[in-house]
Amino acid sequence: MNFIAQALNLSKSAASRLDERNILRKAFVKHPFFGDIEEAFRFEKKFGQFEEGTVVVKAKDSLKVFRGFPKIKRTLLLNPTIKKHFGSRDIVLEEKMNGYNVRIVKIGENLYAITRRGLICPYTTEKARILIDDEFFRDYPDYMLCCEAVGKASPYVPTEVYGIENLDFFLFDIREGRTNRPLTVDEKIEIAKIYGLKLAEILATVSSEDTEKMREIIEKLDRNRREGVVFKDREMKLNPLKYTTSYANQSDLRYAFRFFGEYGRDFMLSRVVREAFQSFEFEDEEKFNERCLQLGRAILEPMIESIRACKRGEMIYEESELVFENQEVIELFKMHMRLLGVEFRVEVLDEGRIRLKRVMRGTSDKIKGILQGSYWK
Amino acid sequence: MNFIAQALNLSKSAASRLDERNILRKAFVKHPFFGDIEEAFRFEKKFGQFEEGTVVVKAKDSLKVFRGFPKIKRTLLLNPTIKKHFGSRDIVLEEKMNGYNVRIVKIGENLYAITRRGLICPYTTEKARILIDDEFFRDYPDYMLCCEAVGKASPYVPTEVYGIENLDFFLFDIREGRTNRPLTVDEKIEIAKIYGLKLAEILATVSSEDTEKMREIIEKLDRNRREGVVFKDREMKLNPLKYTTSYANQSDLRYAFRFFGEYGRDFMLSRVVREAFQSFEFEDEEKFNERCLQLGRAILEPMIESIRACKRGEMIYEESELVFENQEVIELFKMHMRLLGVEFRVEVLDEGRIRLKRVMRGTSDKIKGILQGSYWK
Repeated sequence: MNFIAQALNLSKSAASRLDERNILRKAFVKHPFFGDIEEAFRFEKKFGQFEEGTVVVKAKDSLKVFRGFPKIKRTLLLNPTIKKHFGSRDIVLEEKMNGYNVRIVKIGENLYAITRRGLICPYTTEKARILIDDEFFRDYPDYMLCCEAVGKASPYVPTEVYGIENLDFFLFDIREGRTNRPLTVDEKIEIAKIYGLKLAEILATVSSEDTEKMREIIEKLDRNRREGVVFKDREMKLNPLKYTTSYANQSDLRYAFRFFGEYGRDFMLSRVVREAFQSFEFEDEEKFNERCLQLGRAILEPMIESIRACKRGEMIYEESELVFENQEVIELFKMHMRLLGVEFRVEVLDEGRIRLKRVMRGTSDKIKGILQGSYWK
Repeated sequence: MNFIAQALNLSKSAASRLDERNILRKAFVKHPFFGDIEEAFRFEKKFGQFEEGTVVVKAKDSLKVFRGFPKIKRTLLLNPTIKKHFGSRDIVLEEKMNGYNVRIVKIGENLYAITRRGLICPYTTEKARILIDDEFFRDYPDYMLCCEAVGKASPYVPTEVYGIENLDFFLFDIREGRTNRPLTVDEKIEIAKIYGLKLAEILATVSSEDTEKMREIIEKLDRNRREGVVFKDREMKLNPLKYTTSYANQSDLRYAFRFFGEYGRDFMLSRVVREAFQSFEFEDEEKFNERCLQLGRAILEPMIESIRACKRGEMIYEESELVFENQEVIELFKMHMRLLGVEFRVEVLDEGRIRLKRVMRGTSDKIKGILQGSYWK
């Protein structure tokens, strides 16, 4: 793993600290489909300036570094936080889509898709090679197209609100792999136009004081069952901020409570706190009751659904249907899921189509125990 | 602390393990009001057979052991759990009151009240000396009266549903201090009659299969805003089980979300899980919506209330009004709160009456930060 210290320009002492802290993990499953890559490791945690999810790749003739996508801080209030953060700059409101974050990069002759945690995903890679024209990389060989992968055929976050049956990519950032330096919003728009890339929608440019307008946009997104907004400095000099709709908060809760044996308490509390601050900032009394009812439903309905499923003798699964072009990639994807440590089943539907079922064993076992007369601790 | 090993009959190796694991804590503040006690330590964790909250006391002429009150397991379903646990025995349904658990004991010449964690509370002790006739202890010197301390003037759990303005004690178990052996339900009833002690109400005796009757009782308690039920083997040979009403679950949530910076995520999740299993077992569709609305309110209302209080520049407090007989005990109680590590303010209302305000600094600081434009992580 000497190449990592070399690729990152680490001092000897930094290299040995990296080693001691046991931060590196395999980033991919070796396979002809990933033939450009000899070795690749990902950072499981932040290390110095290197974000979690940073990937270092040894290709035939080169060493490549793809920095992890930086965490975007969340605001719970529009006022005063947006103004305080952005000062007097104009800010761009971009749609925050509900999918999974991938960095599309070029290694050797081919495109590769890296997920948030730094794993090179075969399924997403296959989709990227089909959907993304790699001409961009002839001009920007060491850049990353940071995209939201969205659609029903998603192995990680299946969503249906966008009307995308398969999977598609929506560009939100272009960053230099080695430094994580982002292009400006205008450069990104220009590049998307030139290379025919789809953008995460830019909703508006507003003054940082215009919380009224921001709120309108968020309420409209909420009505359309969208996830939320990323607030960006047009120059990308300041860090972006994010804000989610009530719909997104509640749909997160719905998901987490369906699999309450798997999902962390932190996950649940944070969504509820978001709802409270939004209600405090936005709400009239009438809407408040509706929010409470919806919140209660988002918590209880999925739990009871899981209890009923167990009562019927079923296991609790998270399901999605995936579509592959290449039979071999299905096998590779299964190996990839094993690398992730996921317990899953695959049902073949027809040529290239599978149903992926993640087994939620924690939830299933807990509920079954209680149904058979166990105590709660 | 040699007397502890002696009092508990510990082997040398057990005594040194107890020492190593650093489990013992001071159980009281030295003061003439506690004049019978020379030394007293409590178990902060379970150790071997000794429950958390076990107290060992060195009095003038004796060593006393008061075992911690055993954890009562909770069931989330009546059926099949009650039947599975109690088999074919009849079970006694006792009201589980919403107060705090104290063991009233006699040490030297006086009564003392020990809280769940094993602290000798001056306030509760003063109340016990006034309200409990100590004749019982002439006949049962080494027993503990395990009572729920209930009322508006409670420093730990202020509740108003029982119409008790001050504080009162309701007996639910009588146990031998050194062994934790409980008397049977019938013995307890008999003793309460003889010595004029108030009982936690015995609601019914039912067959372990009669979940219909249990459910009726629980639904009635729920309508009366009561906490729940403890299911007991009349002989007290089997461990009791407990079950709470929806009212109690939601009122716990209301409390925890008011002070969401202090209260654990586990606390919150467990209440919601209880609601889900109860709804699964009890519910028709119509009631379900009402439960969801109430649940959503129990979560959001207290949080928003806390946000609004911070917005007005207030700190978040938990308040209660306490009534003391003896001026000196007020000072001792303040020392006791410091021993507990609680941050608090005291306002003197009039002769012997104080307002106790626990400062919820975690919640206050978190909310204030966000109101001033901080991010959520």
